[in-house]
Amino acid sequence: MSDPRIVALGGGHGLYATLSAARRLTAYVTAVVTVADDGGSSGRLRAELDIVPPGDLRMALAALASDSPQGRLWATIIQHRFGGTGALAGHPIGNLLLAGLDEVLADPVAALDELGRVLGVRGRVLPMCPIGLKIEADVAGLESDPRMSRVIRGQVAVATTPGQVRRVRLLPGHPPATPQAVDAIMAADLVVLGPGSWFSSVIPHVLVPGLVSALQATTARRALVLNLADEPGETAGFSAERHVHVLAQHAPDITVDDIIVDEARVPGQRERDQLRRTAGLLQADVVFADVSRPGTPLHDPAKLASALQGVLARGEAVAPPAATAPLAADGIRRERGDDTWR
Amino acid sequence: MSDPRIVALGGGHGLYATLSAARRLTAYVTAVVTVADDGGSSGRLRAELDIVPPGDLRMALAALASDSPQGRLWATIIQHRFGGTGALAGHPIGNLLLAGLDEVLADPVAALDELGRVLGVRGRVLPMCPIGLKIEADVAGLESDPRMSRVIRGQVAVATTPGQVRRVRLLPGHPPATPQAVDAIMAADLVVLGPGSWFSSVIPHVLVPGLVSALQATTARRALVLNLADEPGETAGFSAERHVHVLAQHAPDITVDDIIVDEARVPGQRERDQLRRTAGLLQADVVFADVSRPGTPLHDPAKLASALQGVLARGEAVAPPAATAPLAADGIRRERGDDTWR
Repeated sequence: MSDPRIVALGGGHGLYATLSAARRLTAYVTAVVTVADDGGSSGRLRAELDIVPPGDLRMALAALASDSPQGRLWATIIQHRFGGTGALAGHPIGNLLLAGLDEVLADPVAALDELGRVLGVRGRVLPMCPIGLKIEADVAGLESDPRMSRVIRGQVAVATTPGQVRRVRLLPGHPPATPQAVDAIMAADLVVLGPGSWFSSVIPHVLVPGLVSALQATTARRALVLNLADEPGETAGFSAERHVHVLAQHAPDITVDDIIVDEARVPGQRERDQLRRTAGLLQADVVFADVSRPGTPLHDPAKLASALQGVLARGEAVAPPAATAPLAADGIRRERGDDTWR
Repeated sequence: MSDPRIVALGGGHGLYATLSAARRLTAYVTAVVTVADDGGSSGRLRAELDIVPPGDLRMALAALASDSPQGRLWATIIQHRFGGTGALAGHPIGNLLLAGLDEVLADPVAALDELGRVLGVRGRVLPMCPIGLKIEADVAGLESDPRMSRVIRGQVAVATTPGQVRRVRLLPGHPPATPQAVDAIMAADLVVLGPGSWFSSVIPHVLVPGLVSALQATTARRALVLNLADEPGETAGFSAERHVHVLAQHAPDITVDDIIVDEARVPGQRERDQLRRTAGLLQADVVFADVSRPGTPLHDPAKLASALQGVLARGEAVAPPAATAPLAADGIRRERGDDTWR
């Protein structure tokens, strides 16, 4: 498929990796980004102004910036953090700019589109929800009685808890999905969820009813990309299988087509079979692939792109374009998604 | 003359008025801006980061922004001040953006060119000096002995002093001129100094040796635009004549061709004759014109544009282009200034 429409859901560094991979396959990349961050610069800005936390959105814009000299310059600019020891120290310029654009335009999507234009972003960066959210978790292991769990509130607190996260919720519950994000999922050829901080960047997407409905209704191929390793704090000690399990627990209605797992993450045949069985919870096939950058816990953009291309090809083999839409094969996909790209 | 090259020297609201007038005459407008502000957002940013104060530069960019929807949107964006009650409250977005661009590019001219590109500025905005300066004044009337004067330091302190400003100095003394500002003055058809806060926005330009030399060496017509009224604080009680006098005192080497004065400012024949005599200190003719917006203390951009056009025409009548440059009449002016506009 030439120029497929790819939508990537996630947040933080994991989403940056997916976007870096997806842009190698197509100009039509939409990022749908979590909005529950309450740490660092984003946290400071949320405490001060009534805005969607800009940090993960800024990183997604930088990942999709044009390769032109201007695009690269502005990617550097928005990522640059103020120096000094004053009130601005540590704020990335892009966070302040997004906060300001939000104030002026009173619409986070318009603000992102405008900054995206300056960066020469050909795709689009969208918040998963047009208002900032909070995250709350039931965490076990913080009391002397290991069966007791405590409510921990805030993304930073959840991500760094020494306890075991059992369940996360968004506050307010059942938040609205950003309409343009729903449209993008519906018009996509491939939707990718993850990798990323599992409880604070990946699972939040499946707690937004509008996104879950779109994920179930879309004709796009849907892939879940597992993390390369567990993370200290929220997923300490988690196996690949456990990642799939907790996602399914949080969203019983969700199915995906493929789960992409780094082959080095699950080397044994027995564990692979077990992971395939657990993947059944999501009605998904498991794709083992080399997607890591050797010697790092990071996804390699080229390898991940190749795995995503493979998943797209699987989708075409199973359901060619003509079978999923009423129009002529060549015209369909473009027309479906046209409005998203205006 | 079609598309003359106009350079406007000043700062703050006065410069904004000149730029609004000049852009009606030509696309080739260069603003050369004072860099001694230590108040408000600029003062806070200077206290925190080692940068040229961005406030007056930002206003000049807004004055020269393109009339396109994008230019107008970004002019609104950079002028917007953050709300809330936190660390960002009151900072215009453009000040933060210029401060950030300065940090990334390590060159205030490159930072201004880059933000100017986003705003669709066809001219150019330049700091008069590539480093931030301080201003210091000898002020009388603060002691019980009226002959005694005190040193007052800082632009805000000087502008708001209840005493009488006798003399201002820049710190460091004899600062370097921005090379691109010198080039622009040399390549100009018309250079305009003022209006603006006399001691803190206008006179500082004639305290920069490189600018004084360029003003004396250029073949451009040179106009001084007087303020419509005295200002509480630094020029309380000043007549038009006194404005000319203190400027000449601060820069004995400076001459200009025309002094533009609002005709309502000096209604009497006797005062006009006296002003013409004082203008001799600068070897200047006095041009009385209606340049004010009725009922306000503000210059009217269209009327000021018309007065500047008249001054340009006087320059052509006195010294036609062919007489001031060695090349063919039509080719000269463009070639002279080409490098400034690349």
